[in-house]
Amino acid sequence: MENFEFQNPTRIIFGRGELDRAGLEARRYARKVLLVTGMGSVKRSGVFRQVADSLERAGVEFVELQGVRSNPVISGVREGIRLVREERAQAIMALGGGSVMDTGKAVAAGACLRDGDPWDFFTGSRVIQEALPVIAIPTLAASGSEMNGYMVITDEESGHKLAVGSPFIYPRVSILDPSVTFSVPGDYTAYGGVDAVCHLLEPYFNGPAPFTPVQDRLVEGLISVILEATPASIRKPDDYNARAALMWSATLALCGLTKAGVGTHYFPVHLMEHALSAIFHVPHGAGLAALLPGWMTWRSETHPGKIARLGRRVWGLEAKDDAALSHKTVDALRQWLGEIGCPRSLRDLGITGKDYRKIANNASFQASIWGIEQDYGVETMVTILGYCA
Amino acid sequence: MENFEFQNPTRIIFGRGELDRAGLEARRYARKVLLVTGMGSVKRSGVFRQVADSLERAGVEFVELQGVRSNPVISGVREGIRLVREERAQAIMALGGGSVMDTGKAVAAGACLRDGDPWDFFTGSRVIQEALPVIAIPTLAASGSEMNGYMVITDEESGHKLAVGSPFIYPRVSILDPSVTFSVPGDYTAYGGVDAVCHLLEPYFNGPAPFTPVQDRLVEGLISVILEATPASIRKPDDYNARAALMWSATLALCGLTKAGVGTHYFPVHLMEHALSAIFHVPHGAGLAALLPGWMTWRSETHPGKIARLGRRVWGLEAKDDAALSHKTVDALRQWLGEIGCPRSLRDLGITGKDYRKIANNASFQASIWGIEQDYGVETMVTILGYCA
Repeated sequence: MENFEFQNPTRIIFGRGELDRAGLEARRYARKVLLVTGMGSVKRSGVFRQVADSLERAGVEFVELQGVRSNPVISGVREGIRLVREERAQAIMALGGGSVMDTGKAVAAGACLRDGDPWDFFTGSRVIQEALPVIAIPTLAASGSEMNGYMVITDEESGHKLAVGSPFIYPRVSILDPSVTFSVPGDYTAYGGVDAVCHLLEPYFNGPAPFTPVQDRLVEGLISVILEATPASIRKPDDYNARAALMWSATLALCGLTKAGVGTHYFPVHLMEHALSAIFHVPHGAGLAALLPGWMTWRSETHPGKIARLGRRVWGLEAKDDAALSHKTVDALRQWLGEIGCPRSLRDLGITGKDYRKIANNASFQASIWGIEQDYGVETMVTILGYCA
Repeated sequence: MENFEFQNPTRIIFGRGELDRAGLEARRYARKVLLVTGMGSVKRSGVFRQVADSLERAGVEFVELQGVRSNPVISGVREGIRLVREERAQAIMALGGGSVMDTGKAVAAGACLRDGDPWDFFTGSRVIQEALPVIAIPTLAASGSEMNGYMVITDEESGHKLAVGSPFIYPRVSILDPSVTFSVPGDYTAYGGVDAVCHLLEPYFNGPAPFTPVQDRLVEGLISVILEATPASIRKPDDYNARAALMWSATLALCGLTKAGVGTHYFPVHLMEHALSAIFHVPHGAGLAALLPGWMTWRSETHPGKIARLGRRVWGLEAKDDAALSHKTVDALRQWLGEIGCPRSLRDLGITGKDYRKIANNASFQASIWGIEQDYGVETMVTILGYCA
């Protein structure tokens, strides 16, 4: 176990019916909030009305930033900042999936800038020093943004999709009502499960610490839950138990706990997926599903041990040696992805060899910002993408 | 999963050598701290000197409250409060095991009282409204006090050992250096492991929610770690990996995460153990070890399912039905307790049938404060103690 610091200040309110507390929770921070939403699903499902009513009952005004798309863009963030300033909103309430929450966080930090542009946070040329309070109400079990200090935004001009973290953008409170996710369709339920699995597996595979039994057990346990809860949620969308299990495990998957102590690590599958999303606009979880089995196969050629152990502990697999077992593990993962209707290769997304270099070039920009271009240079990434064919 | 709220604000600094940061961390909260310690082991091991040097380098003065014993007493808390007031200390640094940390928390809350006595917090006649900042440096992997808002104190006059919780007494920061625990002798290493196992198992067995897959997996995973790390730490006291695994899992065992969502639950084994400790002054972990297998056997007569599943998932056991499997699980636990040199029955502690009623009577006072006397009345507890004979 490597030395680490861990703190997660977000307060979680979890359970059926808790959405009605949105107004009173908002009032702890603001008399007027910017209410960030996506493409309208919360309006169709009635969740927006429920939150708006709660705000009204609590005497909290709101101004809306609507229409945040998946792979959210910096121009939307700028628009949100303009609204906050114009309307003098004092806090951000993000009601939606990861894109909405990440936009909310970026607005919260950007609204405190005296000068300069919020994209500077992502390129690393400016550090977040403060942020308005963020209240998150996730409507999708996926990104974990509701309980962490990260956000991912795309600059539509340069085509770069970049992540940044700061202690200032942890939501002060997040309200997680699993019944809100009943209306999430099967494909996005699956993508959310895959996203959470990736958040767990990338530090599990990529941390340098050789002995991390606590972290490993937490990861293996949460993955076991997600492997069951995702298909159960797809089969029966209003299965509260399954939705609750998926939602809480997806939240914990990126709350920092499973990564603390594994040492400096990075998220190569996410890195390449961000390039995929930025170029081809595939849903994040679909891109991850297309890349993860291939990346694991590539990885197992040099580091089969941990992949084998995942198969042993999570799927109960056995084989003559770690190399064989790691391949069986990838097969088991691939089978699960198939069962929940996900792509399992780049081909499944219609992406072929001629695009690999373009993807790798885009991803290499992120790799340079993260300082990992020596491990994930363009040629290496082209090779890995070949494994994902 | 039942509805829940979860927040844990404690910042954790974990790892070898991090003790040297004690001074700078203290300086964030105070120019003078009350430094609470136990019976001198930290002075013999050199840890006290290391912390004192760090405080001096950071320009933080300290005044000492020494001699806190296991099963810490309210008179020690009162003495600490007097010292804080007299010396105008602004924060509490607790350097020791659970008793030292709990004393530090009680002093932190009690020092903010305008009038009245800190024992009122424990009897429930007064609610904690504020507390001085607490900085915890645990020297034992056991109580989890370093990352929660609970404390347990004994009133030596009435002989009652009572627990209370408050959001104000979470340590602001806790520094966990596993190498500090190298000098913990085998018996106390074992007691610590048992304490952590109990913290995990009591909500696991006693929560009313029938479907808590996330919480269950976390508990089963952490117990798996503790089952290996405890004997490994006893065999080779300076095995950093084992000590680190034991320390971090013991901390997480009572940080609130594994309990959140299981519904209203209580800690019957702890409840009876507090009576044991209060009357016979046995070490807390030894008392738990003597009670847990018997309580589980009693429990398995009506609720074998979860005990059976623990055996299946943690020990890989199988049997013809849950009843048989639950007995095998208790046997496996008993064997583990034997391997780490713990008592496994009241007899092993020299406690016999004639004392059961006295123990049950003492425990019933706690049960009445917790409002669970209908489930854990004196007669029921006498019966359970019979299973622990």
